[in-house]
Amino acid sequence: MEVSSRYVVTKAHIDGAPKESDFELKSESISLLLDSGSNDVIVKNLFVSIDPYQLNRMKSQSSSQIYSTLAAAINPGEAIDAYGVAKVLVSGNPEFQKDDLVVGFITWGDYSVIKPGAMLRKLDPMGFPLSHHVGILGFSGLTAYVGFFEVCKPKKGEKVFVSAASGSVGNLVGQYAKLFGCYVVGSAGSTEKVQILKEKLGFDDAFNYKEESDLKATLRRYFPDGIDIYFDNVGAEMQEAAIANMNVFGRVAVCGVISEYTDSGRKATPDMIDIVYRRIKIQGFLVTDFLNVYADFISTTCDHLRAGKMHTLEDISTGVESIPSSLIGLFSGHNIGKKMVQLAYSPIDIEV
Amino acid sequence: MEVSSRYVVTKAHIDGAPKESDFELKSESISLLLDSGSNDVIVKNLFVSIDPYQLNRMKSQSSSQIYSTLAAAINPGEAIDAYGVAKVLVSGNPEFQKDDLVVGFITWGDYSVIKPGAMLRKLDPMGFPLSHHVGILGFSGLTAYVGFFEVCKPKKGEKVFVSAASGSVGNLVGQYAKLFGCYVVGSAGSTEKVQILKEKLGFDDAFNYKEESDLKATLRRYFPDGIDIYFDNVGAEMQEAAIANMNVFGRVAVCGVISEYTDSGRKATPDMIDIVYRRIKIQGFLVTDFLNVYADFISTTCDHLRAGKMHTLEDISTGVESIPSSLIGLFSGHNIGKKMVQLAYSPIDIEV
Repeated sequence: MEVSSRYVVTKAHIDGAPKESDFELKSESISLLLDSGSNDVIVKNLFVSIDPYQLNRMKSQSSSQIYSTLAAAINPGEAIDAYGVAKVLVSGNPEFQKDDLVVGFITWGDYSVIKPGAMLRKLDPMGFPLSHHVGILGFSGLTAYVGFFEVCKPKKGEKVFVSAASGSVGNLVGQYAKLFGCYVVGSAGSTEKVQILKEKLGFDDAFNYKEESDLKATLRRYFPDGIDIYFDNVGAEMQEAAIANMNVFGRVAVCGVISEYTDSGRKATPDMIDIVYRRIKIQGFLVTDFLNVYADFISTTCDHLRAGKMHTLEDISTGVESIPSSLIGLFSGHNIGKKMVQLAYSPIDIEV
Repeated sequence: MEVSSRYVVTKAHIDGAPKESDFELKSESISLLLDSGSNDVIVKNLFVSIDPYQLNRMKSQSSSQIYSTLAAAINPGEAIDAYGVAKVLVSGNPEFQKDDLVVGFITWGDYSVIKPGAMLRKLDPMGFPLSHHVGILGFSGLTAYVGFFEVCKPKKGEKVFVSAASGSVGNLVGQYAKLFGCYVVGSAGSTEKVQILKEKLGFDDAFNYKEESDLKATLRRYFPDGIDIYFDNVGAEMQEAAIANMNVFGRVAVCGVISEYTDSGRKATPDMIDIVYRRIKIQGFLVTDFLNVYADFISTTCDHLRAGKMHTLEDISTGVESIPSSLIGLFSGHNIGKKMVQLAYSPIDIEV
């Protein structure tokens, strides 16, 4: 028996902002009969994550591609791996059985053939929608959790600024920070997003950066007593402005620098004299270095969700053909919250 | 009884590179009879430290002047405090007696009147020349020690790059790193300095940055296996080049950014994408936050000096009138090692 699987590939390396014509849909037949001795697992993809970092992997060269699987080059014409939730159809791996739900690295396509050694584990949905396991209970949530608690090492009452605050990670950082007892301000790119941050997610304040001409002055207004923690998702001028408003012993967690992904000439020039005198720490991090915190993260976050103390922001498109536009939209701020694509239309496919 | 004391002041704020005409020598009479009840200590200054950071204090405005006494503004016309060694002439403070040697914050002048609460303590020279207590056993040494061990947290065998490596702090960082078991390369601004680093101080290698047109390529050549620790004394392009050559989990200790002090438009634009994927940490620090390490530092460094394992590089001018040119020279690399000015000509004045 065979299934026909459509999957997204890039046609060539992408060095600026991505556009529809950079991608194409390919199709392949996947046999559901495994060769004897095969340890492959064939899964039906249910939800896949759409993340800005994927664009870095599509570039013709990145000096950091050797440093992490999250940075590993995506070769034109080849299937693209991404975090997601799937259902096992056939398994040659004793760890997995038919109909198991799994989470981990699958592909931007209808089906995935998972080789032994890939990051994949059985998923117990614990009563939460599957989409939550891609977003708030997935790598986005873990990134926010470890970035805030492990990298920023917050203290109660500290002043926290989050950029791209309605994005997949930013909205959760703000929520964790509020629950922890910090004062939190977020920046986002529309009035609607600002409203969501303040009214739905409980940020102390938020602003639309597109309406501000002098970000240093803006942040001085929102943080008259200075910023202790800046959770950086955007880089460039926003980082400079945040550092200019930082308090002594301030910390910058560099999670992503989305404004620099599509324009390699755009860079932050933080004031190093401020960094010395204020003893500021700027630290880049990747979620994959903190998998040891996973159990903590899951129990804390599930508790918050069940108690109604955290809210999810999910932005779900459907169908493999919507993957390219979903990725493209990230770079013009189309998404509100966690962007993902649902790949199974029938409720039966995703019935738990 | 009175003494006449000459001291250096700035005529106005200094916003670019300093020049002789920015300074003037003033003179005042200091009475050696203290008012009854006064807790002042009047000292004869013997050696004062000449450090690049002083220029930041002379600027018309620095956004970080409120964050540290090391950044506190120097007002035109007023005496300038600096680290140094002195001898007590008169003391209204029960902690100090006539003829005590002291070390701490004195002034750029012949004599200082030290108010209660100033950072000053009795000095036991322990058999070392007094100049050593301004340099290798003073704040320069402590800065190198805490910057390397506490901020960079080195591991044996790691690859260390030091800029301004023949400067007051850099030369000691390189020596500590070698003694600790690291591979150390330094950059400096002349053939003579490079030779000293390699032949006298035992650096594994060194180069003259003025002879290099592509610093990224230069560092790739000196560090084919990448840099684990960059001790940054200069900022700007050198910092960018070091970060571009950094290994995963690399650390940048930002001690100073001398190339940016005289040109506020000159800034480092480190690649934040590299910082994320390589999980690089950039940390500014000030020596004054690590005074708890002082005793460790002194015992370790004295042991190394007595065992002949560390070497001093001192660059000493004489007389209060040489203070301006000594400071000015720092910004064109005139000094080799620790720059200081000796203020007592007669050997008797500085007899211990």
